[in-house]
Amino acid sequence: MQKTQKKYSVTVVGASGLVGQTFLRILKEKRFPLKDLKLYAKQDGVGKTVRVFKRDYVIEKLTDDFSPHTDFVLFAATADISKKYAPAARDNGCVVVDNSPAFRTDENVPLVVPEINYEKCGKNKLIANPNCSTIICAKPLALLNKAFGLKRVRICTYQAVSGAGSEGIKALCGKKNNAFGYDVRKTCIPKIGEPSVLGYTTEEIKMRDELQKILENKDLRVAATCVRVPVKNCHAIALYATFDKSFLISEVYEALGSDKSIEIADDIFCDKYPVASAANGTDKVYVGRIRYDLAEKNSLAFYVLSDNLRTGAALNAYRIIRRITKNDRM
Amino acid sequence: MQKTQKKYSVTVVGASGLVGQTFLRILKEKRFPLKDLKLYAKQDGVGKTVRVFKRDYVIEKLTDDFSPHTDFVLFAATADISKKYAPAARDNGCVVVDNSPAFRTDENVPLVVPEINYEKCGKNKLIANPNCSTIICAKPLALLNKAFGLKRVRICTYQAVSGAGSEGIKALCGKKNNAFGYDVRKTCIPKIGEPSVLGYTTEEIKMRDELQKILENKDLRVAATCVRVPVKNCHAIALYATFDKSFLISEVYEALGSDKSIEIADDIFCDKYPVASAANGTDKVYVGRIRYDLAEKNSLAFYVLSDNLRTGAALNAYRIIRRITKNDRM
Repeated sequence: MQKTQKKYSVTVVGASGLVGQTFLRILKEKRFPLKDLKLYAKQDGVGKTVRVFKRDYVIEKLTDDFSPHTDFVLFAATADISKKYAPAARDNGCVVVDNSPAFRTDENVPLVVPEINYEKCGKNKLIANPNCSTIICAKPLALLNKAFGLKRVRICTYQAVSGAGSEGIKALCGKKNNAFGYDVRKTCIPKIGEPSVLGYTTEEIKMRDELQKILENKDLRVAATCVRVPVKNCHAIALYATFDKSFLISEVYEALGSDKSIEIADDIFCDKYPVASAANGTDKVYVGRIRYDLAEKNSLAFYVLSDNLRTGAALNAYRIIRRITKNDRM
Repeated sequence: MQKTQKKYSVTVVGASGLVGQTFLRILKEKRFPLKDLKLYAKQDGVGKTVRVFKRDYVIEKLTDDFSPHTDFVLFAATADISKKYAPAARDNGCVVVDNSPAFRTDENVPLVVPEINYEKCGKNKLIANPNCSTIICAKPLALLNKAFGLKRVRICTYQAVSGAGSEGIKALCGKKNNAFGYDVRKTCIPKIGEPSVLGYTTEEIKMRDELQKILENKDLRVAATCVRVPVKNCHAIALYATFDKSFLISEVYEALGSDKSIEIADDIFCDKYPVASAANGTDKVYVGRIRYDLAEKNSLAFYVLSDNLRTGAALNAYRIIRRITKNDRM
């Protein structure tokens, strides 16, 4: 006798945005056991129809009385929207995954990259999805931290315009808008987010705070420089990491090999290194240019790249949700 | 009675390339006291005419018997061409400025950024022009080194396609060629130059070796990650520099203020930071995003940008030549 698969209802807030759309695509690709789907947007996309598993779902307008009762709710909109609606959704009994920065540094809310710290979900009904660049570099850093003890890390990002949503993509296509302040087709832009403390931007401070939380090390020293580049999709990140212990490059390969979602792309003699054109639409974090950091002992230089809409946002949220369903926590 | 200005004859090898063309533009802009001009190219551009100060000069073919006798010779072609012809030009009595990497690490050849170490020219007849990214970051680093003692530096570059010459620009315009191995319109490319030692590329090792030579510190620890980005012109460089002494951010501003070719563009609250769109065609090195490097004490994070064809190549060569003429060494 065939066992009937349990099915789940899902709400997506921000269903017409790039992360929301990517999440819906992933639900389909992975054949998520979907019982029902509710889609919401604040303005753009309201009234549009999305087809999932041979059923059409209309994107509804998010109004003040929004109070979902589905098994899962993904918030893929602004922090303000999450702050306003997520606590009520959680209190209704939904498992809420919030892709906004609203609750990431809240000590009562777990900040989860499933391959690193899925166990933090526990019985929590509100789970924060980290910043896109944070997720992408946290995955290799967590493994290296476990192996050699991460002491400090310098980060320079090469972030695609899709990280700024559909307005970012329009700006790259030459449609005038205010996505970046400068014409991103003509220059890199060394400011992502808003001014924050100590001369850093919110995006850069997020990377520090979120890496400290995910790696459970408040003393971890993190400096980030976040730069927008004229690339459509996939964030690249160059890192210089200093560890407590000395290590061999072969041990770095070994440490990274334990996560199947990490793919080593590292042979400059054969032009093998992480590129957006290969990573687009995939579920992998590509790691390459692995070499000693010549500036200091016990230090490593490497270069990471992944699809920021998937690994950095929608796929991470999906993996959290899917693991909760598989653990039959519901 | 009006003093007659002394005039000089100049040869440009690689006259049809981007650096050669930029050098000729600068000669005109700055009203260089030109007596005569000889232009050479290996293949592309041979037979074309360049108009300078109301005279037309034809680009001649570079042949095996090339042996110039002008006051100055700029080599703006490949290292092979410099190795083949530069020593003979020097022996003829010409002052040779070589923009190729051929002689940069030769201990008998000074490697000169005039604002830093013009005095190294001395009576030398062969002077090496540093790598484009090296020049751009050496200018602020030299001043900070003098003020606080530079111990080590991590570098991530955002290098424009013009650094790869006209083939690079064609690749950005979608004309298929082999400039980058991957389609640079779709991805950043974390490999510039060829594979070198220790997992680094030639471009990255050049930055280390040349910074050590220019800053006269063989113990300086330098790690670079050189990345091509889909921008037409102007290299940007993010740096994390660690110093012997502690410093205030105000002292950083003060140290950088002493070089008039450095312009501080640093107020993220007003969207003021270095961008290619503002730097294109100018003679300035723009420095912004100045802040403490949160990863370590006595460390600074900052972001530099400049026109790589000018500051990073042709303008540096021009400034060397112009200072030699003004010092009446000839």
